[in-house]
Amino acid sequence: MEEVEIHLLKNVDLKGATLIEGFPSVGLVSSIVANYLIGALKLEQVGIMDSSFFPTVALVKDGVPLNPVRLYSGNTEGGKVVVFISEFQPPTDMIKEIAERVLEWGVEHGCSLIVSPEGLIVDRDEGVEDFVEVYGIGSTREAHDILEENGVPLFDEGVITGIAGVLLNEGRKKGFDVVSLLAEAHPDYPDARAAARVIETVDRLVLKMGLDTGPLYSEAGRIEDELKNIHRRAEIVKRPEGQHRPSMYG
Amino acid sequence: MEEVEIHLLKNVDLKGATLIEGFPSVGLVSSIVANYLIGALKLEQVGIMDSSFFPTVALVKDGVPLNPVRLYSGNTEGGKVVVFISEFQPPTDMIKEIAERVLEWGVEHGCSLIVSPEGLIVDRDEGVEDFVEVYGIGSTREAHDILEENGVPLFDEGVITGIAGVLLNEGRKKGFDVVSLLAEAHPDYPDARAAARVIETVDRLVLKMGLDTGPLYSEAGRIEDELKNIHRRAEIVKRPEGQHRPSMYG
Amino acid sequence: MEEVEIHLLKNVDLKGATLIEGFPSVGLVSSIVANYLIGALKLEQVGIMDSSFFPTVALVKDGVPLNPVRLYSGNTEGGKVVVFISEFQPPTDMIKEIAERVLEWGVEHGCSLIVSPEGLIVDRDEGVEDFVEVYGIGSTREAHDILEENGVPLFDEGVITGIAGVLLNEGRKKGFDVVSLLAEAHPDYPDARAAARVIETVDRLVLKMGLDTGPLYSEAGRIEDELKNIHRRAEIVKRPEGQHRPSMYG
Amino acid sequence: MEEVEIHLLKNVDLKGATLIEGFPSVGLVSSIVANYLIGALKLEQVGIMDSSFFPTVALVKDGVPLNPVRLYSGNTEGGKVVVFISEFQPPTDMIKEIAERVLEWGVEHGCSLIVSPEGLIVDRDEGVEDFVEVYGIGSTREAHDILEENGVPLFDEGVITGIAGVLLNEGRKKGFDVVSLLAEAHPDYPDARAAARVIETVDRLVLKMGLDTGPLYSEAGRIEDELKNIHRRAEIVKRPEGQHRPSMYG
Amino acid sequence: MEEVEIHLLKNVDLKGATLIEGFPSVGLVSSIVANYLIGALKLEQVGIMDSSFFPTVALVKDGVPLNPVRLYSGNTEGGKVVVFISEFQPPTDMIKEIAERVLEWGVEHGCSLIVSPEGLIVDRDEGVEDFVEVYGIGSTREAHDILEENGVPLFDEGVITGIAGVLLNEGRKKGFDVVSLLAEAHPDYPDARAAARVIETVDRLVLKMGLDTGPLYSEAGRIEDELKNIHRRAEIVKRPEGQHRPSMYG
Repeated sequence: MEEVEIHLLKNVDLKGATLIEGFPSVGLVSSIVANYLIGALKLEQVGIMDSSFFPTVALVKDGVPLNPVRLYSGNTEGGKVVVFISEFQPPTDMIKEIAERVLEWGVEHGCSLIVSPEGLIVDRDEGVEDFVEVYGIGSTREAHDILEENGVPLFDEGVITGIAGVLLNEGRKKGFDVVSLLAEAHPDYPDARAAARVIETVDRLVLKMGLDTGPLYSEAGRIEDELKNIHRRAEIVKRPEGQHRPSMYG
Repeated sequence: MEEVEIHLLKNVDLKGATLIEGFPSVGLVSSIVANYLIGALKLEQVGIMDSSFFPTVALVKDGVPLNPVRLYSGNTEGGKVVVFISEFQPPTDMIKEIAERVLEWGVEHGCSLIVSPEGLIVDRDEGVEDFVEVYGIGSTREAHDILEENGVPLFDEGVITGIAGVLLNEGRKKGFDVVSLLAEAHPDYPDARAAARVIETVDRLVLKMGLDTGPLYSEAGRIEDELKNIHRRAEIVKRPEGQHRPSMYG
Repeated sequence: MEEVEIHLLKNVDLKGATLIEGFPSVGLVSSIVANYLIGALKLEQVGIMDSSFFPTVALVKDGVPLNPVRLYSGNTEGGKVVVFISEFQPPTDMIKEIAERVLEWGVEHGCSLIVSPEGLIVDRDEGVEDFVEVYGIGSTREAHDILEENGVPLFDEGVITGIAGVLLNEGRKKGFDVVSLLAEAHPDYPDARAAARVIETVDRLVLKMGLDTGPLYSEAGRIEDELKNIHRRAEIVKRPEGQHRPSMYG
Repeated sequence: MEEVEIHLLKNVDLKGATLIEGFPSVGLVSSIVANYLIGALKLEQVGIMDSSFFPTVALVKDGVPLNPVRLYSGNTEGGKVVVFISEFQPPTDMIKEIAERVLEWGVEHGCSLIVSPEGLIVDRDEGVEDFVEVYGIGSTREAHDILEENGVPLFDEGVITGIAGVLLNEGRKKGFDVVSLLAEAHPDYPDARAAARVIETVDRLVLKMGLDTGPLYSEAGRIEDELKNIHRRAEIVKRPEGQHRPSMYG
Repeated sequence: MEEVEIHLLKNVDLKGATLIEGFPSVGLVSSIVANYLIGALKLEQVGIMDSSFFPTVALVKDGVPLNPVRLYSGNTEGGKVVVFISEFQPPTDMIKEIAERVLEWGVEHGCSLIVSPEGLIVDRDEGVEDFVEVYGIGSTREAHDILEENGVPLFDEGVITGIAGVLLNEGRKKGFDVVSLLAEAHPDYPDARAAARVIETVDRLVLKMGLDTGPLYSEAGRIEDELKNIHRRAEIVKRPEGQHRPSMYG
């Protein structure tokens, strides 16, 4: 298993589904979005993504061991969705392969749209409750129409790096609809408010669940704490691998 | 021989056997467990695991040269067992390949269960004789049932790295029963007491030998000393390779 | 996608076309030339060049996501042209592969000539408005004739590195006409005046558009500012990838 | 030629021959043994071992250019022998491949036994003329019998690294007779006395030449000086490759 | 084009020709020899050697772009010759592949002899006009005969590294005649006098042109200056690649 591969744990029909990717981005916007949607929509784990270069780690939740990159799926008012969530930041030299594999896989399974949340770096003061703007950009004419019809302001000049950047390029190259939603986010910590704004936009564009955005912000805060917590535990458990396992032949 | 390969020195029927892995873990818990079981159950060496990236070393015991990673097998009241033992800590980038190869090999030979001991880092004072708890986690519903039926408390939230983590993930992916037993262990030295507690649990779950746990703790201490001794000798012998062989062309 | 590949977004007939490459060179001469020609000749994007080792970035212009290396094409009085433009400096170990791929691709599509602009390092004072000389060198007898017929002084002793150097070598090896135009340029910033002089030469040799060289110099200045601007934005956006994305397992 | 390959310069029948390896070991014991035997038994060069990763060097002796790793062969009272001698210390990551290739080659050519001399580190004072003990260990029951029948004390606990370690492991794995002879040797310089003791043991076990051990010790001293001399010359000649060849493009 | 390949620019019949290699050696002896012979014998470029790991550079001479490694050929009184000349010092890990490719190519084209000039390090005072000795060594009995018949003293003990060392080893392995001519040379600068002495020897052995050795020494001095000059220009032009091309995405 050299390459990035996607393995389904159960048969799912994803024809016409919207694929939402949740690989870590600026302010962990995509991670928080993916986490929230999995919980709020009661999505079920349907698969894993793996590679020989992914971390050798099982994340245990509710007594179940989980791969670091997983696929969840379920139904919404707006149709089927499949969400990719990753517990780790892929190394730079794997980003192209991962993004290309996600898009190819979406095409193979008949998905109709990929949504890629991203954070746009801004330097807001923490106390100031400014309104967070969400911009959109699409890989095709059709993707742009979706944004315009839903009143999402266009991101028309700039640079988009990472998974979102590659998904947009590949979508344009292959004529597949990819939408990236960019929320102004603080780069130094998980930005739950930015993620909440993206969730509202995803709901409006795709899910049509009329998600109650009242508890959304506090929910997002909980997820933010949990993410920090996972990080802290990972730090602690990570130590033995490097230093604490007594070596034998050194 | 690029990849990790397993070579049998004699034909063995391992249908229905329990596979216990003993690659170095936190507090060398799995190493001590594997060493103890090989001695106490009078297991016989049946094979070796090798790779072009494993150390170029023969460990000599009783005048017999031994590969650094070996397979031992034998019978218990609870059925056949096969134990993997490794004298060295695999480099991080080989852990996935090794763990996947162990699981595939177990499937190929009809093994019914993999047991993977691990240490959980705690910072006990050396003098204090606290009770050491052993937690369990399984890759499948059936693996969980084994733990529950035997009263092993569940490890339900956290992160498991290394061989045990990959075995759990792969077991879940392929529907193969993997049980990881996690004992609180001191990370800085071989923790014989933690290993003794895991051995008791393995006996209760699998071996059904009613092993006398009285001498177990002192036995574990002897193994601990031997491991330190091997380490020391390895350090001494290792020197010439790096520095002491007079080079010729440098 | 390991290797460098060229993907066409639409069918184009490039038989007899002149291929102009715009990979970054000394003083960004080739980048400015390519940028100017794409705008002035209203060229249309017809393809992309990509590789798994190219940066994971989408450059957004007018709401359209763009790959970092792109092909543009269109008609001039002197015949069809196809321009390669790259937003990034390829790493040294990719230069041979890129240049060879460009030339092979030109041959496959029936192009008749490759023009490769380069900067020649000189240490002019910024304020002094010296005349910038443009030298030419060709890979074949025919390529030299083109230069001589148009009064371009010959670059007859020296060393040419990078994309231009490889294109000349490969052109000579395969008997394909490659012309490199070398303008004296300042190495430390985008040198718009040097690029303007190359554009005039390209016009005289190939395009026959009688481009008004009056506004050319100020236009070049605008492009120079835009390049600096892109650079600055890239710097800002680049930060999160390295440092600002909160890692999870680190 | 990526891998380690063995090339014969003339056809030789090595059926039943004893293969003696002379890759550098602790105290250069194996190198001195191989050098001495080649001279004393008037062995003839029959082949070379080479790899694209071996040093780019020709050792000139008596006006003949020699590869750094060579095979010599000839007859003794005890039967045919083939000796491998290496002028350089293989890098750690090639030791497995070299040792495996030696053993495979021995099997292919019908050799009946491999003898691998090694040095055991001791810290003798240089002036003190202690008796040097030679220990033996075999890969198989038959190999052990050879040692016991000849009164060689068994090396029964410890760690053997490098070529000798891999040969023992591979011999055990494949049921091929490998004997390693370990002489106490000083690690910091070529130890001729330790080598002399191994030569006596090899003579007793295999060669049956009743070699006169009187001049053996002074002969060994000469070889020791020659080895130091080769080393010194190699040091001098090696310099230009790194620093002294004036580079052109750097 | 991963490997080292040789490409002919025109069909040449090299049956029975002498191949003279001019890759940089101690004191640049082989480079100066090759340069001199190309000029003095009015040899014509007939091919190039290339690899994806060779420098991305075109050397321009008389308005013609040249690959860094080239083949020249022509006739002499002593028969056809083909000369390899390299403008750069190959990295250590390419020397085997290059030397093997040269020899294979010589065999394929029916060449009858390879001559490899080398410098032998000595520490002459610059002012002292000592006589420079040229030693020879051959890969075969026949190659030795050529040296003896022409009164070239034999290099009979020592170490020869680099291209010459590999050519001698490969020649002996394959029974192909290779002669290395070693002149005492100063390692720190291009040693024209050493090269002149080698040229005289090559003339006596192979070319039979009765080259006038009077102007040879001053000619060699000119070449020496030119080599220094190329080096200096390469240094200047090399700068932009590393530092001076303004990067765009960094």
